[in-house]
Amino acid sequence: MPAETLPPNGRNRVVIEEVAPTVNAGRYPVCRIVGDTVTVTAAAFADGHDHVSARLLYRHAAARDWQFVPMTPLGNDLWTASFVVPTLGMWHYTILGWVDHFETWVRDLEKRLAAQPTAQNPNLPPQNIPLALRSGAILLNAAAARATGLDADTLNTLAEALNELANQNRPVYNAPLDAGAIALANQYPDLTHATRYQPELHLWPELHLWVDRPLARFSAWYELFPRSTSPVPGQHGTFQDVIQQLPEIAAMGFDILYMPPIHPVGDAYRKGKNNAVTALPGDVGSPWAVGNRHASKGEGGHKDILPELGTHADFAALVTAARAHNLEIALDIAFQCSPDHPWVAQHPDWFNIRPDGSIQYAENPPKKYQDIYPINFESPDWQNLWLELRSVFQFWIDRGVLVFRVDNPHTKAFPFWEWCTNTLREANPGVLFLAEAFTRPHVMYALAKAGYTQSYTYFTWRTSKDELQSYLEEITRPPVSDFFQPNFWPNTPDILHKQLQDHGRPAFIQRLILAATLTANYGIYGPAYELCENAPAAPAPGKTESEEYLDSEKYQIRQRDRNQPGSLVPLITQLNQIRRANPALQSNTTLTFHPTDNPYLLAYSKTSGENRILVIVNLDSVYTQGGFVTLNLEALGIPANTEFLVEDLLTQATYPWRDHTNFVGLNPATQPAHIFRIGG
Amino acid sequence: MPAETLPPNGRNRVVIEEVAPTVNAGRYPVCRIVGDTVTVTAAAFADGHDHVSARLLYRHAAARDWQFVPMTPLGNDLWTASFVVPTLGMWHYTILGWVDHFETWVRDLEKRLAAQPTAQNPNLPPQNIPLALRSGAILLNAAAARATGLDADTLNTLAEALNELANQNRPVYNAPLDAGAIALANQYPDLTHATRYQPELHLWPELHLWVDRPLARFSAWYELFPRSTSPVPGQHGTFQDVIQQLPEIAAMGFDILYMPPIHPVGDAYRKGKNNAVTALPGDVGSPWAVGNRHASKGEGGHKDILPELGTHADFAALVTAARAHNLEIALDIAFQCSPDHPWVAQHPDWFNIRPDGSIQYAENPPKKYQDIYPINFESPDWQNLWLELRSVFQFWIDRGVLVFRVDNPHTKAFPFWEWCTNTLREANPGVLFLAEAFTRPHVMYALAKAGYTQSYTYFTWRTSKDELQSYLEEITRPPVSDFFQPNFWPNTPDILHKQLQDHGRPAFIQRLILAATLTANYGIYGPAYELCENAPAAPAPGKTESEEYLDSEKYQIRQRDRNQPGSLVPLITQLNQIRRANPALQSNTTLTFHPTDNPYLLAYSKTSGENRILVIVNLDSVYTQGGFVTLNLEALGIPANTEFLVEDLLTQATYPWRDHTNFVGLNPATQPAHIFRIGG
Repeated sequence: MPAETLPPNGRNRVVIEEVAPTVNAGRYPVCRIVGDTVTVTAAAFADGHDHVSARLLYRHAAARDWQFVPMTPLGNDLWTASFVVPTLGMWHYTILGWVDHFETWVRDLEKRLAAQPTAQNPNLPPQNIPLALRSGAILLNAAAARATGLDADTLNTLAEALNELANQNRPVYNAPLDAGAIALANQYPDLTHATRYQPELHLWPELHLWVDRPLARFSAWYELFPRSTSPVPGQHGTFQDVIQQLPEIAAMGFDILYMPPIHPVGDAYRKGKNNAVTALPGDVGSPWAVGNRHASKGEGGHKDILPELGTHADFAALVTAARAHNLEIALDIAFQCSPDHPWVAQHPDWFNIRPDGSIQYAENPPKKYQDIYPINFESPDWQNLWLELRSVFQFWIDRGVLVFRVDNPHTKAFPFWEWCTNTLREANPGVLFLAEAFTRPHVMYALAKAGYTQSYTYFTWRTSKDELQSYLEEITRPPVSDFFQPNFWPNTPDILHKQLQDHGRPAFIQRLILAATLTANYGIYGPAYELCENAPAAPAPGKTESEEYLDSEKYQIRQRDRNQPGSLVPLITQLNQIRRANPALQSNTTLTFHPTDNPYLLAYSKTSGENRILVIVNLDSVYTQGGFVTLNLEALGIPANTEFLVEDLLTQATYPWRDHTNFVGLNPATQPAHIFRIGG
Repeated sequence: MPAETLPPNGRNRVVIEEVAPTVNAGRYPVCRIVGDTVTVTAAAFADGHDHVSARLLYRHAAARDWQFVPMTPLGNDLWTASFVVPTLGMWHYTILGWVDHFETWVRDLEKRLAAQPTAQNPNLPPQNIPLALRSGAILLNAAAARATGLDADTLNTLAEALNELANQNRPVYNAPLDAGAIALANQYPDLTHATRYQPELHLWPELHLWVDRPLARFSAWYELFPRSTSPVPGQHGTFQDVIQQLPEIAAMGFDILYMPPIHPVGDAYRKGKNNAVTALPGDVGSPWAVGNRHASKGEGGHKDILPELGTHADFAALVTAARAHNLEIALDIAFQCSPDHPWVAQHPDWFNIRPDGSIQYAENPPKKYQDIYPINFESPDWQNLWLELRSVFQFWIDRGVLVFRVDNPHTKAFPFWEWCTNTLREANPGVLFLAEAFTRPHVMYALAKAGYTQSYTYFTWRTSKDELQSYLEEITRPPVSDFFQPNFWPNTPDILHKQLQDHGRPAFIQRLILAATLTANYGIYGPAYELCENAPAAPAPGKTESEEYLDSEKYQIRQRDRNQPGSLVPLITQLNQIRRANPALQSNTTLTFHPTDNPYLLAYSKTSGENRILVIVNLDSVYTQGGFVTLNLEALGIPANTEFLVEDLLTQATYPWRDHTNFVGLNPATQPAHIFRIGG
């Protein structure tokens, strides 16, 4: 894919794959008998949360026009539909998928109507229903333009009714369109950017294989908010302060220092502490509300730096200092804008415009994120948008950054990512991308296929033996391991899991050891992790738990001393040393689980030539658990009926083991895991 | 694929598929880390018995030239090779496969040398070693022409030595080329017709689906040698005699009457009775030795009729009479020629020419089939060859034949079949092809993918419960069932299985019931089957058994009366009635096996709406076997803990069954199977 060639259909956001039945991926025909019902299934999905619709198209080879039938969702992004083949001969079939803005509107309007303040709940925030109705009228008029005759008239009449209702400006509680009206509009969907599955349209003339540097497979990440690094209480941290911490971070054995967005933070709708809707004077806001052309010395966007952190020269000094400590700086690229971002003024057509001319902020009715404008990947100016977005990466690559953690890539169009990551990595050997996508499996895998080097995973929510084992077996073996590299994070600034909240230090130790030894890539958000910080925020209204941190660093400065008594710094240091000294832990391909007779004891091994590591973890954070481990001796290269030594790399204790079955007991309060190196 | 467009690379005989690793069939790159060893596997195979060689090609995207490594066979047509990726970035890889004539020659020469008459075995037939040596010299000279410098000189010298050895005309017992010489020649293979795997080169713009008439899925075949149908003892049968038998064959309930080749039989090297090397006067020879321009009123080839059988008018009368009995005539198309075939004189370049100018007969050293010339699908005149071969089918289609049994299609090139069957079925709706391929799974499946409607199977050699169950589960479920339709034959003129030889009538009954109920397509070779004819030919030298019939009808007239006492005609009639009356037996998609506690009791069901058939077969042809059948009630749509009636459609006996587990006992001498219809 030449770097400067954009695909012709960059706004076709739906991905279609896993079509069945097919024979050799469509190379040969499927065979059926006259009168058969042919049932087709496929995965079809898009970025983000818009409604996707799909049709199964089919025609006899002799027929010019396609017939179609709507596909029905089966869950997990799978769809199905059937057609009957009443005549002999060759038939063609394919799938058409599109982002359905009308259905998205119908669904959102329902939520919006239900979320309005009522007599019972007078304190709910108001919903702008007239604006939503006008949006619907525009969609209905557009459907009318695609229809003819009576249908067109009816759709225009329905649009008029919505506009009239909006003009009356009186409370609306019931959905204004009935099922018949919705079905009529759905007969005339907007297929401008629909994706058609075409098995033959491979972009590449041969099979291809992307080769990355070793850091892509084996890396330890440390996430740090630079705003919190000042040694002066209450003062905003700077890149110079981060430089002061580099020796400590490097000494712990990390490879990558990752910082949340370093750009100017917007003023408009800035969030206060603990995600308060209104910021108080002095509140620093969320670094993910990117861009502030008013409060910046530069443009104030994704290529600029929050003045409180320092200058481009300071950043260059940080990159250089990090390199001297064998650390790479990873930046967080969050393609979304605060209302104060320069793109908002310069390129309003890169965003969604509402009928009143305002720009659509992020929302998931009834939730509103007015400090953030999502980017519209269906923009008519999409080519310039793509070029500008990619130039953000190139800007920081030119300043020495080769690792990017990308925020919510699953809400940006897949064709963009495939073009962006592939052209960037072609032009900049060694550049790595970590996808911060916590979403459905098809979507996470599609991002990896599109060019993401590593991905966040479900690890945080996999806590039982069965869950861990089956998930790891899925992601560390082909076909998934041929394109997807997991990166395990026991915490992030967004996720403080219930297990950590409830069980504190023993749970922090257990999850750290699992992350560092189950997959070769792992990371922690510190110093919250070293300090086993586990106080959650108050649950959201109507919820009983929260995975957010109390006094979250996302919204305020949180200065901490990672070397407090009880800190996990020594354990982290030891774990990273063990990872570096043992090649077995530097890839996932040999991961093998070994049966134990206790549901709380998880046993697994990794090997690399003579280097053989066996990890046994007590998944119970409260009680001592003991039991027999039955080793898969073949996977470990140990002859049956022999005696061998296992050395615990955490304690240096050595145990003589014999044959396949041996006993283990682990107390979560003292030592929740063995990391054995198997001796001769 | 337009009917008159031949592919540009019709002589590329190797098929490559199942390449791993791939992501979405090559749509996205596989991911690896610098220094990794990338191991690639693929299926690669060709028609026939020639040696196939394969290379793994790979290059960094920035490199112009491919590097390669030879692939190693893993068995089952699978190959593997690895390469290391020492640099970052995008790499390309693909597979090159070719029919390796030099390696084929090396292997055949070894067999030829070993098969020569010796002092111990003076009666072995002589081998023409000098001719073989000259063939090798030609191949070595060709390799020299592809080499340069010292290698070219060495290869030419080796060729000269072979020619010299041939000229000396003295006994040769040792292979004339050592391993070094062979390896040198193998460095310069002939890649003219090599196939390169190209995932993007789909022939079709969308997914496609071939729809056939119901006979493709549900058919009962009856194979009959017309030569044996005369009521006058010893007299050659005619089409008129066949017409006399139509009422009987139709009354048994068959759909298709299939006849071995009806063309003139060659005189040269005609086989005598029991496959004798020399025919005696009056011997009729093998109908598969097709073609005799001397002894025919017409051209004497594949569009002509053996004069003893009748005229084209007689054949037309047979087709018409068959149609009146709801029978279709199936012809056997065997694309091979007797030395007397008109193509041999008209198109010697359609065959393999030996260094002495003679045409290469079929052989598998030390076996020789001098009555048959195989066709050379690498002929320089391949386009005309293809058109002529296809015209044979069209000739008979124009005379009312819509069903073809194709002899040994796996020894003809796959690109030919894909073009031939697809263009024929596009032009002639309803034409069906049965592949007589008893070979490796990849090859049989590749023929089905290339356009064969039905295929012979391994059924004949699957006799135990486990064998039958696992084979049926493979071929009746996706992905195989999406392109492959099995046709089960308990016997053919080539195959009289040991079980039938050893156990006679009970075994004939058992295998007939299995064939007629396990798959919706089945056939028998009669009247040998009705009469449980089970005397085998003498074993070949060095063998202890033979699957050939004694006094095989392939080489002589065998008049039989299918209505002798003890004939299976009534059972066959009953089975075909049961098949027609029960839609459950008319497809394979619902085939479900049910556990039994006796390894000789095989239980399976098929359903179609309310119609539910449960078959239980005693696989022991000698002893009564009894045991409990545990029904999968869900597959049968039976609620748990209910009572239901099962009616044996063979005996009309009715049994009350209850819940999932019921007892069955079957005596092979009286009734080896139940075919139950499940009642209310």
